[in-house]
Amino acid sequence: MELWYTENQNDDLRFSCRVTRTLHVEKTPFQHLAVLETPCFGRVLVLDGIVQTTVWDEFMYHEMIAHVPLNTHPRPEKVLIIGGGDGGTAREVVRHPKVKNAVMVEIDERVIAVSRQYLPELSRGLDDPKLELRIEDGIEYVTKHPGEYDVILIDSPDPIGPAKGLFGRQFYEGVAAALKEDGLFVAQTESPLFNPDLIAEIYRNLREIFPIVRLYLTCVPTYPGGMWSFTLASKKYDPLEVKPEDIPALPYRYYNAEIHRAAFALPQFLQEILRRA
Amino acid sequence: MELWYTENQNDDLRFSCRVTRTLHVEKTPFQHLAVLETPCFGRVLVLDGIVQTTVWDEFMYHEMIAHVPLNTHPRPEKVLIIGGGDGGTAREVVRHPKVKNAVMVEIDERVIAVSRQYLPELSRGLDDPKLELRIEDGIEYVTKHPGEYDVILIDSPDPIGPAKGLFGRQFYEGVAAALKEDGLFVAQTESPLFNPDLIAEIYRNLREIFPIVRLYLTCVPTYPGGMWSFTLASKKYDPLEVKPEDIPALPYRYYNAEIHRAAFALPQFLQEILRRA
Amino acid sequence: MELWYTENQNDDLRFSCRVTRTLHVEKTPFQHLAVLETPCFGRVLVLDGIVQTTVWDEFMYHEMIAHVPLNTHPRPEKVLIIGGGDGGTAREVVRHPKVKNAVMVEIDERVIAVSRQYLPELSRGLDDPKLELRIEDGIEYVTKHPGEYDVILIDSPDPIGPAKGLFGRQFYEGVAAALKEDGLFVAQTESPLFNPDLIAEIYRNLREIFPIVRLYLTCVPTYPGGMWSFTLASKKYDPLEVKPEDIPALPYRYYNAEIHRAAFALPQFLQEILRRA
Amino acid sequence: MELWYTENQNDDLRFSCRVTRTLHVEKTPFQHLAVLETPCFGRVLVLDGIVQTTVWDEFMYHEMIAHVPLNTHPRPEKVLIIGGGDGGTAREVVRHPKVKNAVMVEIDERVIAVSRQYLPELSRGLDDPKLELRIEDGIEYVTKHPGEYDVILIDSPDPIGPAKGLFGRQFYEGVAAALKEDGLFVAQTESPLFNPDLIAEIYRNLREIFPIVRLYLTCVPTYPGGMWSFTLASKKYDPLEVKPEDIPALPYRYYNAEIHRAAFALPQFLQEILRRA
Repeated sequence: MELWYTENQNDDLRFSCRVTRTLHVEKTPFQHLAVLETPCFGRVLVLDGIVQTTVWDEFMYHEMIAHVPLNTHPRPEKVLIIGGGDGGTAREVVRHPKVKNAVMVEIDERVIAVSRQYLPELSRGLDDPKLELRIEDGIEYVTKHPGEYDVILIDSPDPIGPAKGLFGRQFYEGVAAALKEDGLFVAQTESPLFNPDLIAEIYRNLREIFPIVRLYLTCVPTYPGGMWSFTLASKKYDPLEVKPEDIPALPYRYYNAEIHRAAFALPQFLQEILRRA
Repeated sequence: MELWYTENQNDDLRFSCRVTRTLHVEKTPFQHLAVLETPCFGRVLVLDGIVQTTVWDEFMYHEMIAHVPLNTHPRPEKVLIIGGGDGGTAREVVRHPKVKNAVMVEIDERVIAVSRQYLPELSRGLDDPKLELRIEDGIEYVTKHPGEYDVILIDSPDPIGPAKGLFGRQFYEGVAAALKEDGLFVAQTESPLFNPDLIAEIYRNLREIFPIVRLYLTCVPTYPGGMWSFTLASKKYDPLEVKPEDIPALPYRYYNAEIHRAAFALPQFLQEILRRA
Repeated sequence: MELWYTENQNDDLRFSCRVTRTLHVEKTPFQHLAVLETPCFGRVLVLDGIVQTTVWDEFMYHEMIAHVPLNTHPRPEKVLIIGGGDGGTAREVVRHPKVKNAVMVEIDERVIAVSRQYLPELSRGLDDPKLELRIEDGIEYVTKHPGEYDVILIDSPDPIGPAKGLFGRQFYEGVAAALKEDGLFVAQTESPLFNPDLIAEIYRNLREIFPIVRLYLTCVPTYPGGMWSFTLASKKYDPLEVKPEDIPALPYRYYNAEIHRAAFALPQFLQEILRRA
Repeated sequence: MELWYTENQNDDLRFSCRVTRTLHVEKTPFQHLAVLETPCFGRVLVLDGIVQTTVWDEFMYHEMIAHVPLNTHPRPEKVLIIGGGDGGTAREVVRHPKVKNAVMVEIDERVIAVSRQYLPELSRGLDDPKLELRIEDGIEYVTKHPGEYDVILIDSPDPIGPAKGLFGRQFYEGVAAALKEDGLFVAQTESPLFNPDLIAEIYRNLREIFPIVRLYLTCVPTYPGGMWSFTLASKKYDPLEVKPEDIPALPYRYYNAEIHRAAFALPQFLQEILRRA
């Protein structure tokens, strides 16, 4: 049967994958939520018609959003995750040996429930005793927890609708305040190919708030263009000064000490976007 | 008007981009050849129903197939390009200051003619006085030119149909013979995500022929999964030993000294594919 | 969410409808079976990747396969349905006032079970006391019941795979034998636009077996081209001689006395196909 | 190459046909205009992203818009065509033996020019000496020609944008005024399946202006749902009273005397739409 999930990556570009069946379809109070079974990517989580994650390539995203900042901080003991309802980021955080306590703040509890049911590979970290789960608005949460965190990870959907605030300067100031004085944070910051203006704006904003701001890249084949960016902003520690020998030897699938460094090597066009930012 | 080019990247995955019009459609003696005008990627060259290159992202491929090997060799004076009828690889080769003479061997002269007509951004290198153009079979060509080249670039389509021979061990032995005793070559070697077995096989074959074999990566958004591999095999020079200061300061758009090094940092899953190869 | 069911109506033609969710997906011993929920057509039954029927337009098919032959026969008391597992044809047959007894022979009991669960608008006729349901091969069934039926309805899928035998001359001879001496039968005989050769072949075969053979048309928007044919072959009664006043006044949605007659008016190109048959 | 024209027939329904190449693409002062070459339908004329006509099935539309009204009028000597820039309707009109003079009023001369170049099968009627071609607005034209025509044919695109006025009551009053006292006209009135409200509204309006109003049907496979309606409104002659022997024996492909009558037999659901209108 020709059943296809299609994503309009923009008005002129579409990505389609065959679907075996829908495992779950729901309109939550916050968004349209679906889990699809696909022959190409295994199970796929779709929010408001956009692929959030797939069992096939989620590691390229989740390892990179988590281990780059966790290994940049010498003592990432207290970690905050904003968003990330599927659990993939939490799974990476709780397996880091230095993390003692993690809080995950997700606004839509249905994402968590559905991920627990259909995406155990991602959601298993949600039951780790290190992790505290809170169903509330991440933007409000950070304002109420000043100076508390070593590392904050912003694992948000695209800057459309409810997630838009997670890409704004005001929120970043709240994040800076929620960090300890040597804290650092990372946000997923979309595609350098399709969202260069957003990346430049975030970079510009963060440069005014943090002394160290660095963009790094991963590949997520199911995201538009494959190339995906994270922006790391830090009060003290520089991700380029991490020593390979300090990176814990976990069973990674994407990340490793070489990738930690190489991810910060930016293509020329992207260096120029940041230079002009 | 909803006119869409669709590529079945595999049985379960499709990539589609809107088309404004077809600029050229032809059945050559070797393949189906089309040039499409698209709002998303500008002009797109399609061979046998597969995107070969687009004006929008070709630099991510062509700079990387050319400058990594050219800068690995201290005197890349005599260069052979096999395939690459669109001219993008030739354009990069002829602008390298150390290249004195380049031969490009393309089997299908219609690709060259159509690229000259519709893709001037790519084909302009074809008229460079340093470049000699030959319309013949690349596999045969290498067997007739032993010990002649410093650097050979294999810019082939996917290993289907006529291009299949360009991925086989016998051809690689011919390439090794066509290189001087300190020569090196690079081939585009498909997607690490969708063709890991091919990559492993090529790697295994080349390890038996060359002392130095290294895989490196680029991002080509219009290729399946975005992540794309090249394999560099060298008789003497190691691309990891290139000094940044020896890389000529050309106006690159993707490549630069940091990317030269970072491109060889492989994700963990890919290191394991090569380890098991 | 952009989830689409696509049917390749031929190599160059596709029909797609949005899908809200899959209600059922199964590989039965005979075929791939799915029920989809769609905003455009309500629930859709798909066998081996081909739309069989939709809640939205099924009446245009089921009323026409049933009431045209039932009203052509003056006493359609004993009726055989071959195929029709969704129950739509049976529903029309059992509500005809002159039908006393109907047997439905369907090879795949899973179609019946799934239709009972998800397509009650179609399957409700299956529980009528007039109807006897038999899970067996229709081709074999007719050979074992000579001279038994007034009217036989062949409600088959496309002539691909298992259903192919239901379009062959040998089967039609069996059907003729299973009819009483004044019996008649109807088969769905595909698209006049896309399958003219099949229609001509069936027509030619039936003309050699039955004195009266007539093609008639309906519109089924979810079938290729919209225009759909039935072939009626009769030992004695002519559908063109039915008197409007003899047609029972049931609550039809497509069929009526005018349509009974008009359905046999064939476009010129189709008359010529039959003339040359 | 997978190049597909797709028509979003509504938000939830798509029709796609493979395209070999674009023959013409243009933005005229009135609309987007394209001619596509397709393996399935031959050349296809597309206006504002909607298939207007294809070489493959145009006869099912053009014969039916022309010959039903022309044969309903005993002396269809003076005929007005509004729209119909492709020329297919004109071709049918000028070959009717009783037509002495036809005027075709098309607002967009580019449609005519492009049809002359790429669609000779349709446009050849445009050069007939009986035909006078006028490039102007049809709505204005009728107001300036009271009591002049025996038969008027409204061959318009869908009631979106500029063509909207061609479906309004005011225009129909103008058409009535442009007809002689025993004149009649036909308009294409969209799909009974997807536009029942429009059909009901037109029917209601025309019933207040003309004593005889009848809907008839054809099949146009490349239009949504395949089933397509025309509405005929007449001051004196009834299409149901046409005698088969009065229909001229032209080489038709769809129309014939039986179809003339049968086209007015409406499915029950459509009779009820008109009854409630």
